[in-house]
Amino acid sequence: MAVMEISIVPIGTKSPSLSRYVAGILNFLEKEKDIKYQLTSMGTIIEATSTEKLLSVAAKMHAIPFSEEVKRVVTTIKLDERKDKELTMEGKVKSVEEKLKKN
Amino acid sequence: MAVMEISIVPIGTKSPSLSRYVAGILNFLEKEKDIKYQLTSMGTIIEATSTEKLLSVAAKMHAIPFSEEVKRVVTTIKLDERKDKELTMEGKVKSVEEKLKKN
Amino acid sequence: MAVMEISIVPIGTKSPSLSRYVAGILNFLEKEKDIKYQLTSMGTIIEATSTEKLLSVAAKMHAIPFSEEVKRVVTTIKLDERKDKELTMEGKVKSVEEKLKKN
Amino acid sequence: MAVMEISIVPIGTKSPSLSRYVAGILNFLEKEKDIKYQLTSMGTIIEATSTEKLLSVAAKMHAIPFSEEVKRVVTTIKLDERKDKELTMEGKVKSVEEKLKKN
Repeated sequence: MAVMEISIVPIGTKSPSLSRYVAGILNFLEKEKDIKYQLTSMGTIIEATSTEKLLSVAAKMHAIPFSEEVKRVVTTIKLDERKDKELTMEGKVKSVEEKLKKN
Repeated sequence: MAVMEISIVPIGTKSPSLSRYVAGILNFLEKEKDIKYQLTSMGTIIEATSTEKLLSVAAKMHAIPFSEEVKRVVTTIKLDERKDKELTMEGKVKSVEEKLKKN
Repeated sequence: MAVMEISIVPIGTKSPSLSRYVAGILNFLEKEKDIKYQLTSMGTIIEATSTEKLLSVAAKMHAIPFSEEVKRVVTTIKLDERKDKELTMEGKVKSVEEKLKKN
Repeated sequence: MAVMEISIVPIGTKSPSLSRYVAGILNFLEKEKDIKYQLTSMGTIIEATSTEKLLSVAAKMHAIPFSEEVKRVVTTIKLDERKDKELTMEGKVKSVEEKLKKN
């Protein structure tokens, strides 16, 4: 189980608004199997059973803006993988929240 | 109005679990004025009226693990600032969701 | 042609020194074909003919610390790809330096 | 002693070429005191005596493209700070190279 955060930034778009590109990428993610994902205001967080699966999804997401006349894309990816216990989007947040309650 | 994502990683902790450090940082954020924040599974997203305010909060967050016998901290920050319209955590997500509905 | 920067951070290593892990990863890179790479003080920059190649190398690099009793790895990747002209590590720096000379 | 990597990406520039913005930022860095810096193909690495100094330089760098009619800037910052020994750009690379020779 691994968790990835990804943010895809098209460069050289006339407008500073990027939401239509993000929407196009989310349309792709909706059809992708064997992943969970969550849109945040700074990127998309994706959970899958392996790093290989996550990076394969990342490569497809990164390619999408090129099909819409974009000439350059800068993509930032953060991978978090742990072998000693299950790592999930939900579990990571819960683990912090439990420690907050104890204080 | 600017939005920042920040992730603080203590290095050389005996355990691979970092949630107690994240909880310590969130305790600090709770008392900080003039910001909004949201914990995600990959970092913390913070909104404030200026980049200077955000980076001043970032410097304080980055310093917290050093007070708990940590010797090295790697912090990743992403700043998003826009001058032509208001940029908020909520507005950024809404803007994408509106485009998704239209499709 | 695409360029990637990658930084691999093992978590829960008792020591704050990570250079032996970085050295292990560079030993792997030396044997990898069809790439160019450069070690910097903040990561490794790699150039290859496609994003797929770069991400396949990234997956292998990310897996290396797990073979040395590390239980958690956080990897940050930045991909820069451009379709309207060749993008190389050398060309990107040269392009900035030419603009600096003109000023 | 702390080391920072920073990458400043103006959004909505009609052209996918960003080198003139990077050159403008480097012109600023040249005049800045009490720092060392190095341009790489994926960002700029800066060394200073404190995180506060580094983030103050980062805030000024992030603001520069707004003065050239750019409406949105996305800046990525990675801070590496260590309290148990001196951390420098040169020392970090040397430490890895020494381990490579031993193998």
